[in-house]
Amino acid sequence: MVIENVLIVDPVDGEYVGSVEFDDIILKIEKENKTSYEHILLPAFVDPHIHGIKGIDTMTASLEDYGKFKEYEALEGVWYFQPTTVTCPIEKLSEIQICDDLKLHIEGPFISPDKKGAHNQSYIRKPPHDITELEKYIDLSKISMITVAPEYDTFESFARSCEDRGIRISIGHTNATFSQAKEAFLKGFKRITHFPNALSPLHHREPGVTGAGLYFDFTLEIIADGIHSSPDFVALVYKIKGADKIMLVTDSISAAGLKDGKYVLGDLPVEVKDGIARLMDGTLAGSTLRFSQALKNFAKFTKCSLTELAKVSSYNTCIDLNLKGGRIAEGYPARLVLVDRELNIKKTWNF
Amino acid sequence: MVIENVLIVDPVDGEYVGSVEFDDIILKIEKENKTSYEHILLPAFVDPHIHGIKGIDTMTASLEDYGKFKEYEALEGVWYFQPTTVTCPIEKLSEIQICDDLKLHIEGPFISPDKKGAHNQSYIRKPPHDITELEKYIDLSKISMITVAPEYDTFESFARSCEDRGIRISIGHTNATFSQAKEAFLKGFKRITHFPNALSPLHHREPGVTGAGLYFDFTLEIIADGIHSSPDFVALVYKIKGADKIMLVTDSISAAGLKDGKYVLGDLPVEVKDGIARLMDGTLAGSTLRFSQALKNFAKFTKCSLTELAKVSSYNTCIDLNLKGGRIAEGYPARLVLVDRELNIKKTWNF
Repeated sequence: MVIENVLIVDPVDGEYVGSVEFDDIILKIEKENKTSYEHILLPAFVDPHIHGIKGIDTMTASLEDYGKFKEYEALEGVWYFQPTTVTCPIEKLSEIQICDDLKLHIEGPFISPDKKGAHNQSYIRKPPHDITELEKYIDLSKISMITVAPEYDTFESFARSCEDRGIRISIGHTNATFSQAKEAFLKGFKRITHFPNALSPLHHREPGVTGAGLYFDFTLEIIADGIHSSPDFVALVYKIKGADKIMLVTDSISAAGLKDGKYVLGDLPVEVKDGIARLMDGTLAGSTLRFSQALKNFAKFTKCSLTELAKVSSYNTCIDLNLKGGRIAEGYPARLVLVDRELNIKKTWNF
Repeated sequence: MVIENVLIVDPVDGEYVGSVEFDDIILKIEKENKTSYEHILLPAFVDPHIHGIKGIDTMTASLEDYGKFKEYEALEGVWYFQPTTVTCPIEKLSEIQICDDLKLHIEGPFISPDKKGAHNQSYIRKPPHDITELEKYIDLSKISMITVAPEYDTFESFARSCEDRGIRISIGHTNATFSQAKEAFLKGFKRITHFPNALSPLHHREPGVTGAGLYFDFTLEIIADGIHSSPDFVALVYKIKGADKIMLVTDSISAAGLKDGKYVLGDLPVEVKDGIARLMDGTLAGSTLRFSQALKNFAKFTKCSLTELAKVSSYNTCIDLNLKGGRIAEGYPARLVLVDRELNIKKTWNF
């Protein structure tokens, strides 16, 4: 298969007009000595934080549902994603099903009740000293990531125990001080879940995890729906952190792609109105954002380059999750998304 | 006069060991080919925002007091400063006295009641359409700067009228939105008073003037006392904005340099405890910061270079106020401060 006369966008090599020859992997790339092109070829996207879409919910999905889950994501240009749980009794993790080629992002219960967002406070708890308790209920090889609040005194021992088992820690749903976030960073925990939502805010006398996320070299998940953060705030984060430190996520729930109405997140009722999902008390409850829209929004909010867009939509997350992807370069898997100049998806390959 | 074997610190030429020959102006600078030196020579400092010191208050100072005011500031290494008023009935401006070689910074009454800080709300008012009303009460040639909240619909016409008369506008004590601050910036008003104190805060759904101050290329006054902002916050601002966009100010009141106790700011009672000045309701009421301490604090909080320290303590403000100073370079006025490696002032010249 050969795609000709496209603007190839690679996060490392940049943007150039050329052709790409591939089967499952990219066999050959040729630069063409011209500037005109019809469409734009991007590395396929990765969403490290997604609870559900179109009626599918990670908490209740069957193995069969995963066929549809992947299909829906493919339509968004997403070739890999981390189905994400919400806070529940840890025994309930034994009921979670997931297909063999994906891994879970466990969001809660080891989070702060002060920054619970749409998580059920009844199940929130301090992290145990190590991961053995969790292992009683779920095969750890199914887990890729756990979001944890770093202010607990058990944070480090739990986090180290996770890392020893190949599970990545993301800091999130936390009311930690700037100093506590700094300490976590200096200990090597350098990833933050849906910045700056459900984080201690930036105040000039206590800059919080939000301030630490801006100050230190953390990599940040961003929900670019224009609701969780305003477009101006996203632009500010982009200006301060640069495109190398941002990973787009949807944080979408099962209502994404469906009509406004009543839904459930975990066991909490959610109402979606004008596409905005909230608990009954008004708290934002995940999003209905689609990844293809997140891409457009981020480009619009920040006016970033296409190369930077390839970083925030795929490459940075591939690096973060140690996935082979996020590049249009010879030898890489040929997971490709063709978009027009308005970033509408025209075609995808090898999902 | 010749000073030999010092580390000369110039905001433009950087840091080097050498000797400086001067009378009123710097006649000759010679670099010495060595790295050892005894003391550090800095351009003398400028404080664009100071209400008072050691019992002297801009609101009540006599012309005679100004001799002492300048003397006290000289001990801090400050060769030029803007005595700063607080919000008062504008008729009262007719009573303000100031010596011929200084100019006033008028802080209020054209500020927001929602961000009044320690200003008396009774006198806060919308800016008039132009400066003619103010001119009835005070000789405009005595005024260098006015702090104004940009969210008033009269802001632009008033501000333009000030600029036409050579008066600089600083945005401050404002509850403006990010968009309103952006609009002011794009119209050319690019200076912010004691960032981020008394500014609309950074929230991720409305980044406010604080967010705009970080996003746009505003120049920011900073009170580096570790109280108005935490050291971490100052470090964050420095990291985001860089040393070119920060101007150290003390915002000190008449209690600076005096003991803890009861004082007055404008006509509001202030209590100073452990060096922290507050209104009776706990609101911070200016500072008791001395400029020489601000210098040390900023260096400690940010770990900036000496060259950067010369920028934030003098050069940037000289540029901002169009003053010939802030340099150690031939032809410049020889206003010099010798400090040791701990930044203690050892000697000053030509104040």
